[in-house]
Amino acid sequence: MVSDKYEKISALARRRGFFWPSYEIYGGVSGFINWGPLGAVMKRKIEDKFRDMFLRRLGLYEIETPIIGPEVIYVASGHLKSFREAMVECNRCKKRFRADHLLQEFANLPSHETEKMTLKEIAEALKRHRVKCPECGGNLSAPQYFLTMFKTTIGPYSDAVGYGRPEAAQTIFVEFKRLYEQVREKLPTGFAVIGHALRNEISPRQGPMRLREFTIIDLEFFVDPEDPCCSLLEQVEDETLNLVLAEERLKGSEKPVKLTVKEALSKGYIKSEWQAFFMALAKRFLMDLGVPEDKQRFIEKLEWERAHYSSQGFDQEVYLDRWGWVEVSGFNDRTDFDLRGHMRESGVDMRVFKPHENVRVRKERVIEPVISVIGRTFKRDANKVLDLLSKVNPNEVEKQFKKQGYYMAGEFKILPSHVKFVEREVKETGRRFIPHVIEPSFGSDRLAYVALEYAYTVKDGRVILKLPRDIAPVQLAVLPLVQKDGLPEKARALYKRLIDEGFSVEYDEAGSIGKRYARFDEIGVPLCITIDYQTLKDETVTIRDRDSWRQVRASIKSLPEALWEYFRFKRNFEDLGTSL
Amino acid sequence: MVSDKYEKISALARRRGFFWPSYEIYGGVSGFINWGPLGAVMKRKIEDKFRDMFLRRLGLYEIETPIIGPEVIYVASGHLKSFREAMVECNRCKKRFRADHLLQEFANLPSHETEKMTLKEIAEALKRHRVKCPECGGNLSAPQYFLTMFKTTIGPYSDAVGYGRPEAAQTIFVEFKRLYEQVREKLPTGFAVIGHALRNEISPRQGPMRLREFTIIDLEFFVDPEDPCCSLLEQVEDETLNLVLAEERLKGSEKPVKLTVKEALSKGYIKSEWQAFFMALAKRFLMDLGVPEDKQRFIEKLEWERAHYSSQGFDQEVYLDRWGWVEVSGFNDRTDFDLRGHMRESGVDMRVFKPHENVRVRKERVIEPVISVIGRTFKRDANKVLDLLSKVNPNEVEKQFKKQGYYMAGEFKILPSHVKFVEREVKETGRRFIPHVIEPSFGSDRLAYVALEYAYTVKDGRVILKLPRDIAPVQLAVLPLVQKDGLPEKARALYKRLIDEGFSVEYDEAGSIGKRYARFDEIGVPLCITIDYQTLKDETVTIRDRDSWRQVRASIKSLPEALWEYFRFKRNFEDLGTSL
Repeated sequence: MVSDKYEKISALARRRGFFWPSYEIYGGVSGFINWGPLGAVMKRKIEDKFRDMFLRRLGLYEIETPIIGPEVIYVASGHLKSFREAMVECNRCKKRFRADHLLQEFANLPSHETEKMTLKEIAEALKRHRVKCPECGGNLSAPQYFLTMFKTTIGPYSDAVGYGRPEAAQTIFVEFKRLYEQVREKLPTGFAVIGHALRNEISPRQGPMRLREFTIIDLEFFVDPEDPCCSLLEQVEDETLNLVLAEERLKGSEKPVKLTVKEALSKGYIKSEWQAFFMALAKRFLMDLGVPEDKQRFIEKLEWERAHYSSQGFDQEVYLDRWGWVEVSGFNDRTDFDLRGHMRESGVDMRVFKPHENVRVRKERVIEPVISVIGRTFKRDANKVLDLLSKVNPNEVEKQFKKQGYYMAGEFKILPSHVKFVEREVKETGRRFIPHVIEPSFGSDRLAYVALEYAYTVKDGRVILKLPRDIAPVQLAVLPLVQKDGLPEKARALYKRLIDEGFSVEYDEAGSIGKRYARFDEIGVPLCITIDYQTLKDETVTIRDRDSWRQVRASIKSLPEALWEYFRFKRNFEDLGTSL
Repeated sequence: MVSDKYEKISALARRRGFFWPSYEIYGGVSGFINWGPLGAVMKRKIEDKFRDMFLRRLGLYEIETPIIGPEVIYVASGHLKSFREAMVECNRCKKRFRADHLLQEFANLPSHETEKMTLKEIAEALKRHRVKCPECGGNLSAPQYFLTMFKTTIGPYSDAVGYGRPEAAQTIFVEFKRLYEQVREKLPTGFAVIGHALRNEISPRQGPMRLREFTIIDLEFFVDPEDPCCSLLEQVEDETLNLVLAEERLKGSEKPVKLTVKEALSKGYIKSEWQAFFMALAKRFLMDLGVPEDKQRFIEKLEWERAHYSSQGFDQEVYLDRWGWVEVSGFNDRTDFDLRGHMRESGVDMRVFKPHENVRVRKERVIEPVISVIGRTFKRDANKVLDLLSKVNPNEVEKQFKKQGYYMAGEFKILPSHVKFVEREVKETGRRFIPHVIEPSFGSDRLAYVALEYAYTVKDGRVILKLPRDIAPVQLAVLPLVQKDGLPEKARALYKRLIDEGFSVEYDEAGSIGKRYARFDEIGVPLCITIDYQTLKDETVTIRDRDSWRQVRASIKSLPEALWEYFRFKRNFEDLGTSL
């Protein structure tokens, strides 16, 4: 049996220390993985690349927030109501499965159909397609909804329910007011969290692609809905995107259209300029991680596929050998859904104030109570009535007067003789509003797996991991040609110098030089530096390129500076020395 | 009332975006904080500094592991039995408190006494000192032990109990076998996790100093117990440490002795060379974060204060304005306690094999069954008896023979005539053993707070945050002197160039130049670069030093390179340009 790329990469990843399932000595717990000595560094370099492209360069911010949050947050956000999956249990072996996954796998229903099914429709479809337990062939229970958040209590033996965050976004929204003050009330602005998130999946499989604990990169970008233009659009307007539009999908097709950002906006396919900007940036990000543009697409979510908070959503998908198109990031227009929810549940005003450039004067119709009449009519309740009248909508009062001749303010019957309608001039210094949110959101574990799959290459029967040089976990290997004649000492001195200069370097003297090259090619070390007899004569070394296996000769003296330039993409391999 | 440093720093931290309590809009949940736009970057730079000093330079590794783990891990590690605190509840207001904290605060008992008290002794002490509820004065319940781990279930509505990790160490131990293979079976070796950990404290207070969710830095360093020498000792042997020894503490004193690493080892105060090495490195780490050596000490833990896994332990403490000496890191000799525990619970052999340089031959005494006699005596049970005899200890058999004339192998009575004792030559190619573990462990949130407190300075009534330049969250500010005559355009161009060169930069044109300097001093920006009229003439700028307020003039052209050298400590401020 030929194993697929996922199997090959998983085997390599486990053997060399990229990733593998957690807790294997206890039989494993599905949905949890480790990133090992090589994988953790590579994954962090990918996250650092996000920090550089999406935060530092754009003047946006990273914050760090807790994973555990009190229940009220997930009431406000709607997760407690919506973050659930239909589950079935095998009556015989008692294993549990996600009903939609069974329908996709055994009844060939596409995910955009299963996602809109009700519990009843799921039950019928399972019956119609005679789906049985995939483990033991037993009959399945009726499907039921289950909340897929990890639940705990905050404080030992307390009854304060807490949840592990299923997304980091809410931990940004609840802090928005303070964050907005800290960045001196500027808009648009954005805050990202890169951290662990928890989803208590029913039966996770697929290694790093579907995890119960994973690293999420949520960037919440806050804009004024009345000023939605993207000031950075020109940086990306000619970037092309492969779009699979909702209108096409409704026709049952997944045919992409290739449009520039400018075109996609002017045709109205992407509604928000900032959304389009971040999608274009994400395309470049994935290209920098090694995914060519024809292996990327943006698929528009259908109404019933979108998260409960989203008004328009695209998933960025990458083509993978085993699973086909797989989501690596999502772009959602969350409108003011979340801030509004927290404003409702907390009672805290989440609106921002934006001053007008010039003070605006406008006329306003207000109610003026006729105090003498009100006093006479309502006596000791007069103050209560005045208070109620100060809060009513004048138009509503007038409407009721016309309709029925009176207006009920609470329990009090207000007659036209009790009030006057007057026009008043109001000076408006600015506007209060709830910002809208555009959200790019990445799964860091998936990005890391994708980078590995696109780097995985076989040449002459040997594996080369052609990782982009800025995410390769080990930058350099220093190798004495042989284990004698002073070469190891010379090599160790160079190793030490490169360490002092800040590089991540490995030293290796065990085995033939060819074997060592192969060992470092397999883990994606971009450059191997070899110390040979020539080095003892003239202080030069050979530098070998991982991908082309070509070599150049360079002097030790200028090595650190040249290598820094190489790793910052300011110098090519060929310019590191003289070709051999 | 004069506020102390903690209050001042907390106010600054909240206003400018270093840290503040989480979930304030919902009334807050104690034990959780956010690191804001400035704090998150600073905290990560501190973690990166650890990565550089303790991992990259030493050739050790970082891995990333899950926070949630199955129950069996914390059975094996002993946490389920030992990770608990005595708690009391107020009978009137129902608030809960840690009993030891009440005794420390209201009965003036030192922590090294409260830590060794039994539940009964705690109850008596509370009674004797008439401790009441600090909130309402009510009577307190009898103390009870409570497990301070966050509990959840893995898989929705399953009964598989999981816990949030109270330390990251266990997630390294359970993966040790695979990690050891991945790094090609070398020893000593070490693996670190930098990530969130959870402790369900009863009543956390003290902001970033005592949290329910915090970032732990656990480095587990594995050594051969028969080869405990530290190969890097010479790097630190003359470093001095302030040690508060257990023997001194038992006399009721906290008088430190100042000893070099070499002296502390030769006098036997620190038992493990690697432990001493990491303590010295930690001292330098804290010095680099701004804590002078006389504000640091290492306090040896008394037997009953040590964690259940530790054979010798030191805490590194830093002196803080509000709390006095506070732990920022711990150094424990965990022996083989943890690997042995996981070996016991999982049944997986955690031993490593170390080949001898030369094959060793040794004599071994073995039992040789006399098959003919055994066959005759035990008949159809003979094979069972042979099997049992293959597993017995020859010395034990001989002892029993001498004592009582026979040996019971299971239910079978073995007589001296059934066996022979023979000497056999055994070739030993190596040794199998469980590695021992030396553990340095830091609290990242505490380190970040400590760095802020030691950076907090007041000069001429204004706050300057004198953060070390490599952990300052913003490196540079670019400021046009005035908002006209083309200075903002010039400044923005420089800002853009410095961003492209990889610096973290802020641009600011609002307010007088003095006000802007003050704003950036307060958040610790090491250098402000000002564009003035001179710049338009000769392409030079002024660079202002945060700490001394001195200025130099430098040409824009060579700025990026000079600044890189400055931030890598390869150039002083004075050498950035000509003094003004």
